[in-house]
Amino acid sequence: MGDKLVYSFGAGVREGEAAMKTLLGGKGANLAEMSNLGLPVPAGFTITTEVCNAYYKLGRVYPEGLEAQVNAALEKLEASAGKTFGDPANPLLVSVRSGARASMPGMMDTVLNLGLNDATAAGLAALSGDGRFAYDSYRRFIQMYSDVVLGVKHEAFESILGAVKDENEYKTDTDLSADDWKGVIAEYKRAVLEETGAPFPEDVRAQLWGAIGAVFASWMNDRAITYRQMYNIPESWGTAVNVQAMVFGNMGETSATGVAFTRNPSTGEKRFYGEYLINAQGEDVVAGIRTPKPITRASREEQRETGQSLEEALPEVYAQLVAMFEKLERHYRDVQDIEFTVERGVLHMLQTRNAKRTAPAAIRIAVDMVGEGLITKEEAIARVDAESLDQILHPVIAPGYKRDILCTGLPASPGAAVGRVVFSAEEAVSQAQRGIAVILVRDETSPKDIHGMKVSKAIVTARGGQTSHAAVVARGMGLPCVCGVTSLRLDEHNGTFSALGRVVKEGDTITVDGAAGQVLLGAADLEQPKLTAEFNTLMGWADEVRTLKVRANADEPKDARQARYLGAEGIGLCRTEHMFFDPTRTPAMVEMILADKDDTPARVAALAKLLPMQREDFAALFDIMGALPVTIRLLDPPLHEFLPRSEADLKDVAAATGVSAAELLKRADELHELNPMLGFRGCRLAIAFPEIYEMQARAIFEAALDVKKLTGAAPTPEIMIPFVLARRELEIIRASVERVAAAVFAEVGDRVDYLVGTMIELPRAALRAADIAEAAEFFSFGTNDLTQTTLGLSRDDAGRFLEAYVKAGIFERDPFVSIDQSGVGELVRLAAERGRAARPGIKLGICGEHGGDPDSVRFCAEAGLDYVSCSPFRVPIARLAAAQAALAGAKSVT
Amino acid sequence: MGDKLVYSFGAGVREGEAAMKTLLGGKGANLAEMSNLGLPVPAGFTITTEVCNAYYKLGRVYPEGLEAQVNAALEKLEASAGKTFGDPANPLLVSVRSGARASMPGMMDTVLNLGLNDATAAGLAALSGDGRFAYDSYRRFIQMYSDVVLGVKHEAFESILGAVKDENEYKTDTDLSADDWKGVIAEYKRAVLEETGAPFPEDVRAQLWGAIGAVFASWMNDRAITYRQMYNIPESWGTAVNVQAMVFGNMGETSATGVAFTRNPSTGEKRFYGEYLINAQGEDVVAGIRTPKPITRASREEQRETGQSLEEALPEVYAQLVAMFEKLERHYRDVQDIEFTVERGVLHMLQTRNAKRTAPAAIRIAVDMVGEGLITKEEAIARVDAESLDQILHPVIAPGYKRDILCTGLPASPGAAVGRVVFSAEEAVSQAQRGIAVILVRDETSPKDIHGMKVSKAIVTARGGQTSHAAVVARGMGLPCVCGVTSLRLDEHNGTFSALGRVVKEGDTITVDGAAGQVLLGAADLEQPKLTAEFNTLMGWADEVRTLKVRANADEPKDARQARYLGAEGIGLCRTEHMFFDPTRTPAMVEMILADKDDTPARVAALAKLLPMQREDFAALFDIMGALPVTIRLLDPPLHEFLPRSEADLKDVAAATGVSAAELLKRADELHELNPMLGFRGCRLAIAFPEIYEMQARAIFEAALDVKKLTGAAPTPEIMIPFVLARRELEIIRASVERVAAAVFAEVGDRVDYLVGTMIELPRAALRAADIAEAAEFFSFGTNDLTQTTLGLSRDDAGRFLEAYVKAGIFERDPFVSIDQSGVGELVRLAAERGRAARPGIKLGICGEHGGDPDSVRFCAEAGLDYVSCSPFRVPIARLAAAQAALAGAKSVT
Repeated sequence: MGDKLVYSFGAGVREGEAAMKTLLGGKGANLAEMSNLGLPVPAGFTITTEVCNAYYKLGRVYPEGLEAQVNAALEKLEASAGKTFGDPANPLLVSVRSGARASMPGMMDTVLNLGLNDATAAGLAALSGDGRFAYDSYRRFIQMYSDVVLGVKHEAFESILGAVKDENEYKTDTDLSADDWKGVIAEYKRAVLEETGAPFPEDVRAQLWGAIGAVFASWMNDRAITYRQMYNIPESWGTAVNVQAMVFGNMGETSATGVAFTRNPSTGEKRFYGEYLINAQGEDVVAGIRTPKPITRASREEQRETGQSLEEALPEVYAQLVAMFEKLERHYRDVQDIEFTVERGVLHMLQTRNAKRTAPAAIRIAVDMVGEGLITKEEAIARVDAESLDQILHPVIAPGYKRDILCTGLPASPGAAVGRVVFSAEEAVSQAQRGIAVILVRDETSPKDIHGMKVSKAIVTARGGQTSHAAVVARGMGLPCVCGVTSLRLDEHNGTFSALGRVVKEGDTITVDGAAGQVLLGAADLEQPKLTAEFNTLMGWADEVRTLKVRANADEPKDARQARYLGAEGIGLCRTEHMFFDPTRTPAMVEMILADKDDTPARVAALAKLLPMQREDFAALFDIMGALPVTIRLLDPPLHEFLPRSEADLKDVAAATGVSAAELLKRADELHELNPMLGFRGCRLAIAFPEIYEMQARAIFEAALDVKKLTGAAPTPEIMIPFVLARRELEIIRASVERVAAAVFAEVGDRVDYLVGTMIELPRAALRAADIAEAAEFFSFGTNDLTQTTLGLSRDDAGRFLEAYVKAGIFERDPFVSIDQSGVGELVRLAAERGRAARPGIKLGICGEHGGDPDSVRFCAEAGLDYVSCSPFRVPIARLAAAQAALAGAKSVT
Repeated sequence: MGDKLVYSFGAGVREGEAAMKTLLGGKGANLAEMSNLGLPVPAGFTITTEVCNAYYKLGRVYPEGLEAQVNAALEKLEASAGKTFGDPANPLLVSVRSGARASMPGMMDTVLNLGLNDATAAGLAALSGDGRFAYDSYRRFIQMYSDVVLGVKHEAFESILGAVKDENEYKTDTDLSADDWKGVIAEYKRAVLEETGAPFPEDVRAQLWGAIGAVFASWMNDRAITYRQMYNIPESWGTAVNVQAMVFGNMGETSATGVAFTRNPSTGEKRFYGEYLINAQGEDVVAGIRTPKPITRASREEQRETGQSLEEALPEVYAQLVAMFEKLERHYRDVQDIEFTVERGVLHMLQTRNAKRTAPAAIRIAVDMVGEGLITKEEAIARVDAESLDQILHPVIAPGYKRDILCTGLPASPGAAVGRVVFSAEEAVSQAQRGIAVILVRDETSPKDIHGMKVSKAIVTARGGQTSHAAVVARGMGLPCVCGVTSLRLDEHNGTFSALGRVVKEGDTITVDGAAGQVLLGAADLEQPKLTAEFNTLMGWADEVRTLKVRANADEPKDARQARYLGAEGIGLCRTEHMFFDPTRTPAMVEMILADKDDTPARVAALAKLLPMQREDFAALFDIMGALPVTIRLLDPPLHEFLPRSEADLKDVAAATGVSAAELLKRADELHELNPMLGFRGCRLAIAFPEIYEMQARAIFEAALDVKKLTGAAPTPEIMIPFVLARRELEIIRASVERVAAAVFAEVGDRVDYLVGTMIELPRAALRAADIAEAAEFFSFGTNDLTQTTLGLSRDDAGRFLEAYVKAGIFERDPFVSIDQSGVGELVRLAAERGRAARPGIKLGICGEHGGDPDSVRFCAEAGLDYVSCSPFRVPIARLAAAQAALAGAKSVT
């Protein structure tokens, strides 16, 4: 910690500036900056964030020297204001506000009008000639201070005020006279004494330290902690405290207070946008007791508001404000969110900060500002939060819609959808065929539910985390999904589910908001997204600067088309097993699985039936992707996943295959695994039964040659072997793939180029990367499984405690959503290094769910990977994140 | 490969020596060495192992220059023998034998009497004056060559010989005259022509190259591959080929052939031990057609054999042999296994090699030889295979017992036991209470079977690998166990199991041989082991040299006592969950689990009931272990493992707890996990429910103080937090343990020293070891789980394909038995380094199953760990392996 704990601003003092956000917090740094710019900022001082950290480190005790520095700053403030703190003749009043490095609106506490007591209130009344104003301010102060500092809740005060109003038949607060307020104040003080056992502090210094302490304490309140978790703000940043001379927007009809944006934060439109109130304090605008008016005349007319806009009511002030807006936007080179107060016709700036904005607004503003020459293309790219693009790629619930929230869970896949509740994949299919929009609600989903998920509008599950089966598949399909709804109790037997006391029947209509993790009762109004011209412009710029390629995970033609539309440069992961879950293929698949371990001919015969279907699957993908690379992962899940389990499924499959349900069940039992994630799957299947991969390889090569013949364009399949842990596995399978290729090429009399590579999804594979690279032309990091194994964390089971882990600060973020850089990340970096050393030029990519997470994309860029692959709907996010990573990298190099 | 491909020996030539085993194989190097020592070795030459490797590398083609070098060596041999290869007048005959670096008895092929054809056979008859001998040799050669080189099976020849004997009413082969043999030879040749389509080769050079090729080919026969896998012999070693002048033990009554050991290889007794046959070739001794006689008179008398010992029959030869035995033992400083032939009264030495021996013999010989001044204590330590000690710590089936093998599986835990078949833990308990010896046979076991396993004499499971639950628990308890008996089909409903066509009923008696992985029908004769004085002497020496400490994994007083008896220096792993599976504790445990997530008081109340039980558990262990360290792992498995599942269990628990079976089942369903190995377990439980570990910590501290008060000796508990993946977890739990310690110490008014550390059992924990070490006073590598996660391999499920993986050369050994040094091992080394760098002096140990595997112990010593911990019965193995590692380490340093 530096020696200087307090920084003054305003009235020509220049101790801080915008660049000192870390130390002074956003508000403090910007107040200093505005003041340095010559804007009319009431003077004040900032207690640094370092003091906050020291305060907690010392066990909620202020560091030495703070009191002296605060006193000195206060003296300076008194001098510049020409008023004295606690002086009844000419009292200085101050506001005490929090201000962290990142804006956390409404999360922490503020106290206004501090410095009032019986004596100074009387002085203020005399000085302003407005007793009503003075005592109104005083009672506001008592109310706020009691709430924030003393922990006396507002209900106590509301009933007192209500009684006085009832007694006098007053309708609004403004009806109260100075004397009325005095009576209210006496009552307030009595209430404080009763509730706290101590009188309300008359000593203004005691008031000041009480408020400072309350602001620091508010850094650790539940709201603030939750907010920090939501926005990944480290606790260690701390908050600053800003003490500033009060100015009053409630000193009559030439006084006012307002908030404004230099552009529209919802749409990005370039027009001032804001609201103000005549004769009010800032809190009134926010509190919603009086309805604020638009600032500009144009807005007022558009909104058909009666009354006057600020432009009309105080045209001179408005003109000053416009000038300041322009100055600030030019200075900060970004849209500003401003608070101002007009005290008896004089404008004071209380805050400016970069405005929060919606994703569409962020894009429009960034592109517009490049057009205006305000920022560069690179800055425009950096300005848009990549993750926020998710908002513009999916339907959303209309902003005005009043939500009836039934229950909440994890926001597993964004977008909103309306449909009728069904409880099984079969029911989903059957109703969907009749044209009914359905939402599948289950405890959890499994690969056998795929056909039902495909036809559903959204998925809700009681269990599972953000990378559970349901979540992964839903994101892949672009379906809204809410997972891990712990309050949801399914009663399939009665065809109902209950949540927090309410019961929903099969067929009832619900709405799912996947981005918010909410399930709503009834049909919400939805809005469809459009990809704007600005979006395309921005993405074009992003593509120019990024070096990391972006591919998509796509198993079906529909996904592949979506992926190309959203700018994917290939398929990074085609999961062939999804093709086998199709009910029409179940009989042959089951036949294959039921073949005795040693009965290779029976297995080969069953596989032969699957060959033409697989060939068609691949041909369709190759056709769509043209010359772009298509990475096909050979069969990965354990075979028992393909066997029916539920009674209905058993019956269907038994009918389709002619194998008895008992036999099917017996085989499933034999194949049952305690930990299937670590079981007989991936290339382990091919070591035991080489004919499975041989069929798939044949289908790939035949399809590629078919498409080549048909279109003239040669596809470039990249054949990916999953779950490898040793070079020898890959060598054995590689040899078999090469044999198949040679055979097919000879049969057809033509050839295509292809690569054989592997997933790196086991810690051992990462460690042995040098070895494995000798047999692999590419690595694709399967960071889902690599996270599961490196952390020993089953993504389907972790839902039960992941939240507690994030809360306890063990994980910064869900490691299945954002790559665990210090654990899994070290293995990725190490494998990339070892792989490149052994085979320079080896192609490196990532195909886990992380491929669409901006932080993870940045990590991949830093680790030197060649591409990321993600769900089609996340391709734009990855493109933008990759561009941002390239810019950040370029910056850190120069 | 060097230029010299062929090395001659014998007749004064000194090209090879014993030290050249790598190049010349064991047999070749020892033949050269014996000849160098002046022993009468028939001359010959050795084709190097490098030629074998080149032969396979070139695709079964001989390297250039080989033919010329073989021809040169053959000329030298002809010169020294004074005979010419293929010369009818004075034919040189040779033997062609394999000889790898390690002895692989009977695994590869040999051809004797090579160089015979119609012409040379006639020459040999004239020269020896013994037509019967010459043509008998010729037919033997045809038979052997046809089998080994031409692939004509012996049945063809046997029926020919049988027909001749029947026709002439001969009883034995020796009844055939020279002319009879000529007729047989003609028939043999016809059979070869018929079977192979080509005449038997008359050209002796063609014969020689055929035999050389066959020996090289035999390196890759199935037997040899299997043997190499069993004994961890790398394929890359290759085999040498030895071509040696024939000498004949079948030239009449002054000729003989025999095999001998310089000491008894079964018991280690210091007395020559061996067998011989007059007028016979070496193969006759092995073939068992004639019964060989003992070499010494003493043995003959002891065995009440009629006929003469070699000592009596050929006393001069015997005296020469005794002198050579002594010379060889002194020279090689080890027990020798010798082959010799006496040709017309002249002794020839055909082979010497270090003798294979049983574990008891190895110990006795090593200790005796130190007493004799032949070897040092250090050499004695190195001489005994640590793994082999397993044989002397458990009962075994009597050597002579004729086994009726029902089925075989994996040798999961050594020892033999006899008992009646039961199919459930309950039945095991009920029968055991009536004094019946039972063997528990199940598909697989789970922690809920512990009480049934405890009372069983042995365990057999159809599923699971060598480190499945059944295997681990059985080894811990010292019970024989055979796992993964894939041929076993359980029919619990009818109370039977079947294996390979035979059906066994509940109550039938079987015998389990855990070391051999066999299940036998009926009650075998068992022998009980005794720890001999020599064993204790050897272990004493081992303890003097080793630096790695050895602890035991022990959960109960019985285990702890066994551990101390076998020399453990502490408990490295006490699994507290095993204490909760005790049926008397189930009600409180279930109550704890059923407490609502947010109902901490209910959970605390249930835990309070468990506290006194846990305190007693720990007090008993502390009492036994005295001042030795006791590492206690706090609760590790997921809670659902403690809930009943089977109908019988449900009923019992429902009755004991008053909770309905439906409720129990519902809770178990709620807690169900898809991959429990990666689930809500270990310290994750304590992050969610801190009160569980708090109760355990309290029990530990209270028990330690109780024992201190009672005995005056202060126990030193080491509290181990399982499944940690980040420092923060450990910090949170550590703080709670310290709070409990402070509280207990204050209550009792006394204190004990204790450590808090963690298991490193997740790849992330290994990677973040520097971080984690800041909060851990010790690391214990949980290599079972670290192997599961690093390799993505569920030890309960891997049985299905592990064998295929070892066969395909993907794993050298089962990675759950011997640590995967290049994968898991890298993580261990890295974590040890990072941990030590962050906290110098941090205590490092290993408590996975690998702690008792000699190779893994050596690895741990190299990685610089402080101790290994293993099952009590493996403690001596670990002590010896640690001593061997220390010696190897000292050697490699100097």
